[in-house]
Amino acid sequence: MKGLFITIEGADGSGKSTQIERLRRYLEDKQYEVVLTREPGGTVISEAIRHIVLNKDYMEMSDTTEALLYAASRAQHVEQFIKPLLSQGKVVICDRFVDSSVIYQGYARGLGMDDIEEINRYATGGLQPDLTILLDIDAEEGLKRKKDQQELDRLELQKFEFHKKVSQGYKKLAQKHPERIYAIDGLLPVELIHEEVVNVIEKKLNVNNT
Amino acid sequence: MKGLFITIEGADGSGKSTQIERLRRYLEDKQYEVVLTREPGGTVISEAIRHIVLNKDYMEMSDTTEALLYAASRAQHVEQFIKPLLSQGKVVICDRFVDSSVIYQGYARGLGMDDIEEINRYATGGLQPDLTILLDIDAEEGLKRKKDQQELDRLELQKFEFHKKVSQGYKKLAQKHPERIYAIDGLLPVELIHEEVVNVIEKKLNVNNT
Repeated sequence: MKGLFITIEGADGSGKSTQIERLRRYLEDKQYEVVLTREPGGTVISEAIRHIVLNKDYMEMSDTTEALLYAASRAQHVEQFIKPLLSQGKVVICDRFVDSSVIYQGYARGLGMDDIEEINRYATGGLQPDLTILLDIDAEEGLKRKKDQQELDRLELQKFEFHKKVSQGYKKLAQKHPERIYAIDGLLPVELIHEEVVNVIEKKLNVNNT
Repeated sequence: MKGLFITIEGADGSGKSTQIERLRRYLEDKQYEVVLTREPGGTVISEAIRHIVLNKDYMEMSDTTEALLYAASRAQHVEQFIKPLLSQGKVVICDRFVDSSVIYQGYARGLGMDDIEEINRYATGGLQPDLTILLDIDAEEGLKRKKDQQELDRLELQKFEFHKKVSQGYKKLAQKHPERIYAIDGLLPVELIHEEVVNVIEKKLNVNNT
């Protein structure tokens, strides 16, 4: 018995939560047992680790330390939570997973995508999602709309540059792993995105035939 | 300005503390500024991480999580404590470092030496000791002495097997890195070991000429 491991990726505001909820309802209607999760994923140890990462007293934390702590938290989430559910045949849908670390830390913040991928390969024991849905929001598109209204200030520009990197990084990653990552235009109407998500899942995982 | 980074390795009871203290006095007499350290190394973040690793409520912690937490703690120790001292030209003597993780977790507990080496290469940003003194205690030798007295019980035998692995692992590691690791018979008298330590340091690092 082997469950399905689905992850949802995308920038903040790309509509992940909405799509996860739709997908959950769809799969439950098809009689699948679905578990939603996100990191730190409800294990006590993962939460304790996250607590250190997010502690505002620890401003001196090095990037490397932070990356290793995120990986440690994920290792526990995988071992204690995700893997047991998958071996019980459940469908596990995770809101962000390794790809988020690779994009946000590895690419946008410049720690190196390969390094972050490698640490996380160790952390997850090589566990890969069966399918990753990427809700692709184009940062340039967002800027154009904004610019029609007014000029961006310095902070908005910095923020925009970061979002642009996130968006670019996700595109690169999707090209690197076409067998796993399926990108959908996040600016489409919610219902159309949901239909495409369902299509992908039905086609790729034969959900409708089992 | 570039300091010296010396690590001391060996099984518990191999006499590391004694030799570290002798070495410190020797180097200070030669007017070196010496800093002794050990992990978690006196950074608040490293200690907070160690606190999680050692918490007895967290018996469900996976081996992978533990290995990543040790690496994270070390990353902070290196970045915030060791590297700044070395760049000030200090001599830093560290009681156990990466090699201990490689031997105890990677080899004796079977997590894989290569994996542990790789995580720690990332954690330390590739920082290697200029010299590692290994105080080599032969587990077999210890057993022979013990056996003359009485038969080992089951727990003692398990403990012995572990120590044997630690001893074997250290020997392997010393063979793998002969340019860095210098093994000294830990059963020699304290004064002789100290002399050999001083010889190695004088020869390899030209301490006496600078």
